[in-house]
Amino acid sequence: MVALIAKKRDGGEHTRAEIEQLVMGYVRGDVPDYQMAAWLMAAYLNGLTDTETLALTEVMAASGEQVDLSAIDAPTLDKHSTGGVGDKTSLVLVPLLAAGGIAIAKMSGRGLGFTGGTVDKLESIPGYRTELTAQEMIAQVRRIGCCLAGQSASLAPADKLLYALRDATATVESIPLIAASIMSKKLAGGARHILLDVKVGAGAFMTTHERAQQLAQTLVRIGTGAGRRTHAVLTDMSQPLGYTVGNAIEVREAIETLRPDGHAHPRFRELILHLAGQAFAMCGVEPSHDAGRARANTLLQSGAALEKFRQMVEAQGGEPRVVDEPSLLPHAPLVAELPAPTTGYVAEVHPRAVAHACLVMGAGRQKKEDTIDHAVGVEVLKSVGDSVQAGEPLLRVHARTETQLQQAQAILETAVRIVPEPVAPVPVILEA
Amino acid sequence: MVALIAKKRDGGEHTRAEIEQLVMGYVRGDVPDYQMAAWLMAAYLNGLTDTETLALTEVMAASGEQVDLSAIDAPTLDKHSTGGVGDKTSLVLVPLLAAGGIAIAKMSGRGLGFTGGTVDKLESIPGYRTELTAQEMIAQVRRIGCCLAGQSASLAPADKLLYALRDATATVESIPLIAASIMSKKLAGGARHILLDVKVGAGAFMTTHERAQQLAQTLVRIGTGAGRRTHAVLTDMSQPLGYTVGNAIEVREAIETLRPDGHAHPRFRELILHLAGQAFAMCGVEPSHDAGRARANTLLQSGAALEKFRQMVEAQGGEPRVVDEPSLLPHAPLVAELPAPTTGYVAEVHPRAVAHACLVMGAGRQKKEDTIDHAVGVEVLKSVGDSVQAGEPLLRVHARTETQLQQAQAILETAVRIVPEPVAPVPVILEA
Repeated sequence: MVALIAKKRDGGEHTRAEIEQLVMGYVRGDVPDYQMAAWLMAAYLNGLTDTETLALTEVMAASGEQVDLSAIDAPTLDKHSTGGVGDKTSLVLVPLLAAGGIAIAKMSGRGLGFTGGTVDKLESIPGYRTELTAQEMIAQVRRIGCCLAGQSASLAPADKLLYALRDATATVESIPLIAASIMSKKLAGGARHILLDVKVGAGAFMTTHERAQQLAQTLVRIGTGAGRRTHAVLTDMSQPLGYTVGNAIEVREAIETLRPDGHAHPRFRELILHLAGQAFAMCGVEPSHDAGRARANTLLQSGAALEKFRQMVEAQGGEPRVVDEPSLLPHAPLVAELPAPTTGYVAEVHPRAVAHACLVMGAGRQKKEDTIDHAVGVEVLKSVGDSVQAGEPLLRVHARTETQLQQAQAILETAVRIVPEPVAPVPVILEA
Repeated sequence: MVALIAKKRDGGEHTRAEIEQLVMGYVRGDVPDYQMAAWLMAAYLNGLTDTETLALTEVMAASGEQVDLSAIDAPTLDKHSTGGVGDKTSLVLVPLLAAGGIAIAKMSGRGLGFTGGTVDKLESIPGYRTELTAQEMIAQVRRIGCCLAGQSASLAPADKLLYALRDATATVESIPLIAASIMSKKLAGGARHILLDVKVGAGAFMTTHERAQQLAQTLVRIGTGAGRRTHAVLTDMSQPLGYTVGNAIEVREAIETLRPDGHAHPRFRELILHLAGQAFAMCGVEPSHDAGRARANTLLQSGAALEKFRQMVEAQGGEPRVVDEPSLLPHAPLVAELPAPTTGYVAEVHPRAVAHACLVMGAGRQKKEDTIDHAVGVEVLKSVGDSVQAGEPLLRVHARTETQLQQAQAILETAVRIVPEPVAPVPVILEA
């Protein structure tokens, strides 16, 4: 083991057998934490080659259960977002794609920091079960074309162990290690097509275009190297996504976006159409991205996508009436608006300020053990480029208590910047 | 702690307070092994500045007992060798310097790998006690001017912990970490003057001149920065030092070197005179290095140095008659010579081959728990540059068993390289 650490320390390239020895030795407990920690820091500083990164990903993917989707006739696809503020994309995209003939057994994580994860958001639907076995997932996908569940604990256990160690040893922010972590779970998930939404900006994990691009390229190389058809899109996260940040209010916005006559946020709707167009094209359901987009638009307009969402909620034990009566979702007792102090144009809606306000109200977790208040959150009424009149509401806070409301308002005071000159809106798709 | 690891990972410079937090946190058990391991790898790869290295050294020195030599009137000096094959320098230099008016409370380590350390060699003298308390050491130095003892377990405990972790995480060969480890024990040892013998070549820890020079410079900067008068000498370790490699046979050679009419190895005697000249000059006992050398020569010729050795052996409970009757030292039952296969000149005596032969016979430890056979060893009868006749003995093996003898002979077969053309001898002092 000391020789393996020394090899990476000196910039050498590991064989697949060596990577397996390292990772599986660690999983079995033969390699102690301190040796793996030294190796991780050497890998962080000296990097991993594409060959090493692919081997690491495949070894981690093979460290636990591997979902077998071969019994499903339709093309199988998995999607992953690197995460951001107000990111409810899966809630809309999964039923939309399923309505269009793609089978999608999507597993999502819980949130830590910021707001909840997709699983937390789903749990604001009364009765919705997020813990499904692989068998239950496959059965549901065969029946209705999709599921949206929590990640199985038996999926890529090596990744869980390594992530916890990286978190304690300042070795998280390494592109090959991040990419291997993400892709190990996608490979174990079994889908033949992988669509990646790599977010860029102040509200994302990758704050610069260059780093996001590097991550996207690494993710695609791994997916392709592992024999999966893989595509990555770079999308904007310099402001919150859509109108809402929280849990139940994001579910409400997702339903609104799926509804034929719903009031969808233009940027969020554009993201959905772009990703769906890509998915339909890469799975061969449509011959081109444009044809895929058109199919997605039709599925939204016809109500088929919303109907699929209702089926999925029902299949997973959730109350399907929320689709027609969003008031059945939890809502917070206190609502207050933050008015624009001046007339002008929105130059910035700081995503971390909005996320932080949600966090202090209990919409996210500061520690793993924290419980989430599904009802609280923030509505973002204006986007960058919008004109505003003094006194017009910019943000709407949904809080449980007066104290929370005041804390959130204090944080949000400086979240929206207004300037006198017109500001160009920011495109949501940065690289198709 | 994660922030401290990230700082070093990103090439930042730690404050002294941060270094103290790291090291003392680790000693107290608040910082887990894996976090310290990640920091060590970051420090290995990104380096430590002089300021950080000095702080690390001083924090480690202050982590345990600090010997107070202020009650001693004479100038106090400590010496350290980075180690090599046949390095018995302390056995001769310590009594020689004490005979010349320098107070020297020298603590040495045991050996791991190669042959024994100075403490192991001393323990081949019947009755010699190497475990002295700081009080016993100071009392003996006040009475006779010197002691040669084992290193107290309470000296720089942080260094012991860190060294064990470095050994398991491929972070040993870092010049700042090596230098801090060496100097922490020297600083805790309390002497005002520090003389360092940095060995270079195939039989040393530093095999290249450049690395040895870097280490020497770092050691001197730390000593000087900590307010100690510090000097480093670069000396050759491309062949074994002196005539003998082992334990009792090295003590025998030390006595022979101290004896006025003794048969001293010219290179070993040159090393002793050079280091002693340096020590007398830096301590202000003589005005110059040349005058210091002359003083050392006189002390050897007069028998004063040998007499001091006898006093030291007696003071530490050893049998003083070994000085006049070296046959009282352990000796091995089997002795065999390896003859020169051809006439010519010695081009190489490979120090690691000689050390390895000693190790397989039991003169050193392969694991910490191994016990040492003080009697076995190898005599090196020829040095690089010497002319030899075919059939003339090159090496003499002292073994306990026939099997050992045969193993050692097999290893030594290729240790001495003979060429037809004359070869220039290698100077022992490479940088004064």
